[in-house]
Amino acid sequence: MHVPGHKSGAVWHAGDSHDQEAGSAGALVDRLAGILPYDLTELPGLDDLHAPSGAIAEAETLAAACFGARETAFLVGGSTVGNLAAVLALVAPGDLVLVDRNAHKSIWHALQLAEARVVLLDTVVVDGVPFGPDPAQVIATMSAHPETKAVFLTRPTYYGTAIALKEIITHAQNLNIPVCVDEAHGAHYGLHAALPPSALALGADLVVQSTHKMLPALTMSAMLHMQGDRIPAARVRQLLRMLQSSSPSYPLLAGLDLARRYAATQAERDIAESLTLLNQTAEALGWALGADAFKWVITDPTGSRTGYELYETLQAAGFYPELADMRHVVLYHGLKVDAAILNKLVAVLSQMDVTLVAPRPESASPRTVAAAQVVTAFSRSQLAQPTRIVPVHEAVGERVAEMVIPYPPGVALLIPGERITAEVIATLAQLREAGAHVQGVADRTLRTIQIYD
Amino acid sequence: MHVPGHKSGAVWHAGDSHDQEAGSAGALVDRLAGILPYDLTELPGLDDLHAPSGAIAEAETLAAACFGARETAFLVGGSTVGNLAAVLALVAPGDLVLVDRNAHKSIWHALQLAEARVVLLDTVVVDGVPFGPDPAQVIATMSAHPETKAVFLTRPTYYGTAIALKEIITHAQNLNIPVCVDEAHGAHYGLHAALPPSALALGADLVVQSTHKMLPALTMSAMLHMQGDRIPAARVRQLLRMLQSSSPSYPLLAGLDLARRYAATQAERDIAESLTLLNQTAEALGWALGADAFKWVITDPTGSRTGYELYETLQAAGFYPELADMRHVVLYHGLKVDAAILNKLVAVLSQMDVTLVAPRPESASPRTVAAAQVVTAFSRSQLAQPTRIVPVHEAVGERVAEMVIPYPPGVALLIPGERITAEVIATLAQLREAGAHVQGVADRTLRTIQIYD
Repeated sequence: MHVPGHKSGAVWHAGDSHDQEAGSAGALVDRLAGILPYDLTELPGLDDLHAPSGAIAEAETLAAACFGARETAFLVGGSTVGNLAAVLALVAPGDLVLVDRNAHKSIWHALQLAEARVVLLDTVVVDGVPFGPDPAQVIATMSAHPETKAVFLTRPTYYGTAIALKEIITHAQNLNIPVCVDEAHGAHYGLHAALPPSALALGADLVVQSTHKMLPALTMSAMLHMQGDRIPAARVRQLLRMLQSSSPSYPLLAGLDLARRYAATQAERDIAESLTLLNQTAEALGWALGADAFKWVITDPTGSRTGYELYETLQAAGFYPELADMRHVVLYHGLKVDAAILNKLVAVLSQMDVTLVAPRPESASPRTVAAAQVVTAFSRSQLAQPTRIVPVHEAVGERVAEMVIPYPPGVALLIPGERITAEVIATLAQLREAGAHVQGVADRTLRTIQIYD
Repeated sequence: MHVPGHKSGAVWHAGDSHDQEAGSAGALVDRLAGILPYDLTELPGLDDLHAPSGAIAEAETLAAACFGARETAFLVGGSTVGNLAAVLALVAPGDLVLVDRNAHKSIWHALQLAEARVVLLDTVVVDGVPFGPDPAQVIATMSAHPETKAVFLTRPTYYGTAIALKEIITHAQNLNIPVCVDEAHGAHYGLHAALPPSALALGADLVVQSTHKMLPALTMSAMLHMQGDRIPAARVRQLLRMLQSSSPSYPLLAGLDLARRYAATQAERDIAESLTLLNQTAEALGWALGADAFKWVITDPTGSRTGYELYETLQAAGFYPELADMRHVVLYHGLKVDAAILNKLVAVLSQMDVTLVAPRPESASPRTVAAAQVVTAFSRSQLAQPTRIVPVHEAVGERVAEMVIPYPPGVALLIPGERITAEVIATLAQLREAGAHVQGVADRTLRTIQIYD
């Protein structure tokens, strides 16, 4: 006698007899119907995500212990809502923050809502693969701006690459500046000695992990971890209450608890077995894997095929990569790999004449140690500011009024308020020709762009 | 070779053999595993919720046609994210808006993030059941404040009660003020002639519906509908891109499309059959149902038992009501009722000596036609303002620093910045004694309260 309206599936199934379309959607109905008995609302005994005291509190405590946090909040709105809550809890209008250009769009959106002043940190790029900011530049910038309210970093990148977080965190702790790490792609870090340590283990104050990306939770579920005393945990919780649905999905919550159970009891063994198989597979191809052996960045050594073309070849062979960019295609292996599938992959990759890119940031060109400059002040009023649409070649020197995010990898090429350079216009032309998928822009063909009037 | 990490269930199932806990969670794993093949990410052919052009765009267009909107956006963050996006798209800092005190907490949260100035509209209460604001007061307030940027109304309430929306909308249209309706509990309205018309049919500019509450979608899925030219649809879409997960759940999206299919092809017949059965059931109890026959508000006519006590009696008999308050318990029937269950319900209710409350707003006491006063200006800086915790009896006259929302029904007793009156303190004492579930407050026992320092 309560919501949800599907009544554990009674409504869907009861109708099959007088629904002529049932056949086409029947399989999906059957699959979804299987979880409907768990698709409940806040009934007695089911606790309340927004004020957990029972089963959800217990599951969050187990997760905090498993991942090494003082406190963990389950997220049903993805890492997106974790990033939004972290920024809005830590940043008041006009506050200065340090942000890597490699940040996920949710960080930029949050900074706009929070009306932050942002120092943009350049991303170190090695062999065309982004790593995140140069630690020396982050440290120099923090020292130059001791009023910095927080540092927002992304680690690992979509490519499985990572920056040296430890030295940044040590320096930030000396300055009492909280370091927030978007570890969306690294929920498996620290679960086996051969993988990189987790950001929490390295001392990060707040860490957001997409539990569905590398651990076996349902898509859109994630966790926000906190430790230490530099994070106003109560305010973060308050923002999560404000931003997350008052009807959170119990299957997503249950999936988070199952993923934690997997991480706590089973992941280390699966990872060990998988690493053995992955290394054997890489050896068969003559490759040496990077620090995150589950992510393979592959390229055409001659440079004659784009990542999009490599993607199509793999797709035709039955493999759907995680992402393609101008030069690379990235494969994500699950934590429990399958030897037969890997054998098939070896056969396909051998035919493709490609190489593995396992760049190391230490091989980067001499480090920039100059502090980054304050680039932009975000403002909510930008949302209402008049804009106009112009052909891209007429936009040089103008301030862009939309986010331009080639996706994946989701690294912002332009953030609202930034001046458009000739270099950026050239990149847009390349992306257009390569058929890249670009988010944020009104004109997906990239022929026009929105600027402030 | 992509996320999600569950790899369609391979990771969960592969581990069963060396997981000693598998038995206890096995049933849940099996249920969730059933949807994992549909728990995908934005792969080719699966479209992109944040820039729909394929299957999702088609599903949204079908939904717009089904529910009578010009444009519909699928929501994976519940009505919560729809309300947040609507408010943030329409309201700039300092803008004046009219809001019913009966509004869902997501509206208050959004107003705080938007830094709105708010005219609080009182809720008409008949027989202890809230209806929403008196239309005459809404109209008088709009006329007194022609600078009003938007009106945010809730219809129906959690109790299935509703205000006369049509006259408010007509007046607002004359003043060119957009009317946004939180129709979270009324997604079934307009699907049968015997039900109230939908807010869209009555001319509302923006309507948010919780498709999972009365229609058979998955919990946390909802729709945002727009029509007319008073809503900046592109800005609403932009806010949704900012607030919703970049990894939206495909099962939730698929469930929305299935619920639309149900609404378009099957709901009218199910509702007709159910209304016959519900009316027969009500007659057997000597009751006449209200306008929304699927929601039964039940009370102890002697007033000796609280709604919470009635809830317990029903729960002991195997019926879980949707909500209980001090005086009532509310039962939600699904759109496809079951005759055997209704017979059992008659037996239980007959024993309980209760009556149905079917109040009509027309029977309310003489209407207040005075315009409501500007009560509070919301500010994001409130989130960072110093507060202290005091015993509730010492808080009279102070400005409250937290939201106090007895939940359900989720109607705000206090919103941040409001002065605490002796009357409110008395209500808090009643709620505490009755064991009500109150959200927003740090002290769930309601012995202390947070105030601005």
